[in-house]
Amino acid sequence: MTAASPEAGVLGLDIGGSGSRIAWSGLEPGPREELTGPRVRVSTAGSSVPQLMRELLDTAARTWPGRLRTLHGIGVGSTGLASLVKDPTGLVAQLTAENACPAALAVDAVTAHLGAFGGSGGAVVVLGTGAIAVGHPGPDASGLHGPQWRRVDGWGHLLGDRGGGAWLGRHGLELAMRAHDGVNPSGAALLVAARRRFGEPATWPGQLYTREDRAGVLGEFARDVVELADGEDPTAVELVRQAGREAAQSALAALATDRDHHPGGFPSAGPLSVHDVPSQVVLTGGLARAGGALKEGFTARVAEHTRAVTIREAAGDPLDGALTLARLAARERLSSQEGALWI
Amino acid sequence: MTAASPEAGVLGLDIGGSGSRIAWSGLEPGPREELTGPRVRVSTAGSSVPQLMRELLDTAARTWPGRLRTLHGIGVGSTGLASLVKDPTGLVAQLTAENACPAALAVDAVTAHLGAFGGSGGAVVVLGTGAIAVGHPGPDASGLHGPQWRRVDGWGHLLGDRGGGAWLGRHGLELAMRAHDGVNPSGAALLVAARRRFGEPATWPGQLYTREDRAGVLGEFARDVVELADGEDPTAVELVRQAGREAAQSALAALATDRDHHPGGFPSAGPLSVHDVPSQVVLTGGLARAGGALKEGFTARVAEHTRAVTIREAAGDPLDGALTLARLAARERLSSQEGALWI
Repeated sequence: MTAASPEAGVLGLDIGGSGSRIAWSGLEPGPREELTGPRVRVSTAGSSVPQLMRELLDTAARTWPGRLRTLHGIGVGSTGLASLVKDPTGLVAQLTAENACPAALAVDAVTAHLGAFGGSGGAVVVLGTGAIAVGHPGPDASGLHGPQWRRVDGWGHLLGDRGGGAWLGRHGLELAMRAHDGVNPSGAALLVAARRRFGEPATWPGQLYTREDRAGVLGEFARDVVELADGEDPTAVELVRQAGREAAQSALAALATDRDHHPGGFPSAGPLSVHDVPSQVVLTGGLARAGGALKEGFTARVAEHTRAVTIREAAGDPLDGALTLARLAARERLSSQEGALWI
Repeated sequence: MTAASPEAGVLGLDIGGSGSRIAWSGLEPGPREELTGPRVRVSTAGSSVPQLMRELLDTAARTWPGRLRTLHGIGVGSTGLASLVKDPTGLVAQLTAENACPAALAVDAVTAHLGAFGGSGGAVVVLGTGAIAVGHPGPDASGLHGPQWRRVDGWGHLLGDRGGGAWLGRHGLELAMRAHDGVNPSGAALLVAARRRFGEPATWPGQLYTREDRAGVLGEFARDVVELADGEDPTAVELVRQAGREAAQSALAALATDRDHHPGGFPSAGPLSVHDVPSQVVLTGGLARAGGALKEGFTARVAEHTRAVTIREAAGDPLDGALTLARLAARERLSSQEGALWI
């Protein structure tokens, strides 16, 4: 272990579709201080993640000038890294060079995993604006190594992100539009809520399609859907419960137990290490705090699984995980895995 | 009726998510000549419809210089007019002034209606890249007047367009991703087809979210879904059948018969004239030609309706409808209706 001065510390960054955060903490686990920043935007020029990272680091340098002189590692968990950021390897090399300390970049679900399990193995599913699950057997004596991360979903609001905020908001707005169109009245309460937030339905396309943070806009409506579910509107309850079921399916797939049912030939998201991943799952992310119907759906779907799987509460959040990643990077106890983690 | 020289003619424009067309035809109904143009793009600056209109008119002026000197009317049917184009009223005024003849602008479903029913009343549903339905009682002796257009859907690929090409492609890609993620193997054949078209799944988000013609990209995959359905892949068959059912629901709602089930208080898409609209529906648009499971789903859903509704074949296409609109504009036999038609 590196000898560290009392002020030796690390930085953790958590970058998502509804906001970003940066935290400073000691090289040994302990309390953290944090600052907030804006959310990710996606345009024809790509994702704004690299620019956001730089902005957060600049803010940290201005806020904590003394502490950044004794920086030992940087850990970043971010949305869209595996798909929308063009060159994660180049980005981490640049981070390392500019800050003169080891750095690691991971998809947001990896930092959520590190935060949630605090060192043990299992699968975590993160419901934020998006939705992604990862499974990992956990670190061994030499550290946390790939290629053992199994990733499920995180494909964005048009291809997946099943059960996440944008998914929930989009389905809620679709049902509201069915009510508006006279096709199906079951979304009547959702229509009232959507009118309150966005105005007349005819104006919604113009508000949504021209925005670069479409997923964030859809995710905003998820709050109304959850609120209606809490008030027992049956359509909203069913939708929120379905979000919980989707989250459970992704977590179970990240445990790789599905291969049990489909021996051979089954398309798999990544390298499997099925017997090594402990059968425990954590549901986390901003939307996971919705509780109620969401947790019911999640629990019910896990219980339907063919193998016994334990549901745990998260030990810490993704920003804790980003700090853990930074500490592992500082001690060179990490290895890269394409699509999950870059050092 | 205006006395017209032998060359007196009109222009019709049909602007959509997968391409655009402009046609010249006589002031009296007869054969048409046509040219093609690019598809609509949507960016933070709004929709490219106004610019596309200008390009098509420029091309027509270069191709048919003699004919455009005796132009009596212009009719435009376009996607996104009611929601993404900022000022349809200003746009039609500009068209009229620049071309020194009456012009009319309508949402694409209105020109589809005029083409499909060739003058009688009913409801048409257009399945192109998007999906929209409109109902109208048909013209009377004095022409075609609002406010009698009842519009359903056409809300774009995130809010609706139920049963259209982007809807079908998006659902197909979602199922392909479920197979890739190991969540549900039923989309295995869709995954094979999607890999063939777009490459490895991890690259799909980068190909899709950074594009301004996302709906068009999703719509391209609809072709593969239809092809798989023709080859009897059960998941694709079910999806294409569901598209047909969605189309039927929109057409039935455009007949306004749903109010029969929900007297009072039911949110409605526009002014109703329920007893005037003949109970006949037409399924049209590029995707409607898919046939097979799509028509089965459409027919089955119409048959489940509480009232007898006749399914008809379209007499003509939306470009024919745009020419009809131009002829009605030339004779000043139209009136505006916000959200449907502007003169």
